[in-house]
Amino acid sequence: MKKIGLAEGGGGSATNKFIKELFISRLGNEASEKMPDAAHLETGVRTAFTTDGFVVRPEFFTGGNIGKLAVCGTVNDLAVSGAKAEYLSLGIVIPEGYEAEKLEKVVDAVAETAEKAGVKIVCGDTKVVEKGAADGLFINTAGIGRVVKDWASFENIKEADAVILTSDLARHGMSVLLARGELGFEGNIESDCAPLNKMLESLHEYDVHFCRDATRGGVAAVLNEISEGAGKGFLIRENDLPLRQDVGNLCEILGFDPLSVANEGLAVIIVAASDASHVVEKLKSFPEGRNACIIGFVNGEGRVILETAVGGRRVVDMPAGELLPRIC
Amino acid sequence: MKKIGLAEGGGGSATNKFIKELFISRLGNEASEKMPDAAHLETGVRTAFTTDGFVVRPEFFTGGNIGKLAVCGTVNDLAVSGAKAEYLSLGIVIPEGYEAEKLEKVVDAVAETAEKAGVKIVCGDTKVVEKGAADGLFINTAGIGRVVKDWASFENIKEADAVILTSDLARHGMSVLLARGELGFEGNIESDCAPLNKMLESLHEYDVHFCRDATRGGVAAVLNEISEGAGKGFLIRENDLPLRQDVGNLCEILGFDPLSVANEGLAVIIVAASDASHVVEKLKSFPEGRNACIIGFVNGEGRVILETAVGGRRVVDMPAGELLPRIC
Repeated sequence: MKKIGLAEGGGGSATNKFIKELFISRLGNEASEKMPDAAHLETGVRTAFTTDGFVVRPEFFTGGNIGKLAVCGTVNDLAVSGAKAEYLSLGIVIPEGYEAEKLEKVVDAVAETAEKAGVKIVCGDTKVVEKGAADGLFINTAGIGRVVKDWASFENIKEADAVILTSDLARHGMSVLLARGELGFEGNIESDCAPLNKMLESLHEYDVHFCRDATRGGVAAVLNEISEGAGKGFLIRENDLPLRQDVGNLCEILGFDPLSVANEGLAVIIVAASDASHVVEKLKSFPEGRNACIIGFVNGEGRVILETAVGGRRVVDMPAGELLPRIC
Repeated sequence: MKKIGLAEGGGGSATNKFIKELFISRLGNEASEKMPDAAHLETGVRTAFTTDGFVVRPEFFTGGNIGKLAVCGTVNDLAVSGAKAEYLSLGIVIPEGYEAEKLEKVVDAVAETAEKAGVKIVCGDTKVVEKGAADGLFINTAGIGRVVKDWASFENIKEADAVILTSDLARHGMSVLLARGELGFEGNIESDCAPLNKMLESLHEYDVHFCRDATRGGVAAVLNEISEGAGKGFLIRENDLPLRQDVGNLCEILGFDPLSVANEGLAVIIVAASDASHVVEKLKSFPEGRNACIIGFVNGEGRVILETAVGGRRVVDMPAGELLPRIC
């Protein structure tokens, strides 16, 4: 079983061989084969730029792994901002002794997901640290893309705008939790981890006012951030929340509010009420959007209010503190 | 003594408070205060894009720390490619229990160095991992900038071009090694860690054919990469290598070739012979370039040859394997 050694991180010939054989053969394109210090790229005059770190444990879970996640997370951050995702960087910290085969699987997932999303990995960096200095892979991706729309400005959000979720809740968080194998029972929930960029780009023709993906802190965090930033309230209906029965049951057993659990393939879209049904219809034409639905609307009050299944009302607070560590 | 907890990484209100108080207050600008998923920026139509990870131990050394290094490394990668560095991302992995005061010093260094280099930190990410899952801070920066020149194409390199070093050798590697306190003697060598972008931009008017900074693997790695990529040889003269006496002595005691030791403020510049002295003069007008000098030239042979102080000749090989782990 081949393992990664410190020599692979030394910066000399062993590093070059490692990069060429394990990374460039999988991610390769002209820019990276020359291994320049910086890739020179054609872009628009307005560029979207984002970064995200990935420390998920375990690194492999149903529906994905840390490599797939690292591409989806950054592609989705570009897409929800209203940009067309184009180029990604890939930085990996690898502990000495890490199995080469596992690393290959992760890099394969990076390559496959990038191809699916239509983005190119154009620059990268690897660092190898001593055994024990890191408990597994730490990945960072940054991404750039062409700005098409501004979907990140709170001031565009208007009263009576519809709130749409592009997918059902809480699958990523519950998938990773099950994959840890610490719950005393078995189960199989597939993470929603997916690149949403092509689906979201198809919405550029509609009157979308705001978009954000609901990762750490879930939909509850996104709605509260918007509420705080925009000074607007929300009324959402529990009966309309898309939630798979098995995911909902698991959340209930473990005491999690599905609204606060991380997703990796779910965007919250705030759209003019007149366009809401068209947007849902469009979303449903993509596999990642098959469960899309309207869950409520923007109202004048300053809080996020949930109308419960039995007709009561409760405030959905910003999740506080340690939710599920290392979910992404 | 305040310490960072897992709650600061949870994605909820504790995370937002942590990001606002510790990061945005230091790095702040309009883009980051809104904490969007992606910053939207004015750029040129040709954009340089790079990334680098930083795992240096110890995190603090004479002349810098991991935060300063993280800005210099990425700014320099953009600058040596021929681009004008403009915007940086900042991703940090923090172990639970890390001292807040140390983290503040690192972020302060990021802010100071970015200001000195004239670049803006426009997006970021923090992840907190459990105690023991990382042995300290892991930082990733990515950077984008406007393409002005192409200094990264091997085919521009011509026979008889001059080879210039912008600074004296091996200071970063020896500084970090001394800071580890494992050598059984004390000493104080200041790392050359510095943003080189303003100095290198001043060379856009000259006939520079190639530029690369000599980090891991040192000048030996850069010259060998060029030699392999360009199919050209080098003749460099030991007597002309800029090397501080104390740094040279330490390298000798420890058995390191100064040509293979990491620098963090040294670029190798390949320039038309007719412009070489002008370039050196220009470099010397900057503090970071005060020790700049011509060390040799490009010749037709396919290897990197060193003319030794006593008149002999030896091949300078690509450094192999584990040199100095975690030097950057």
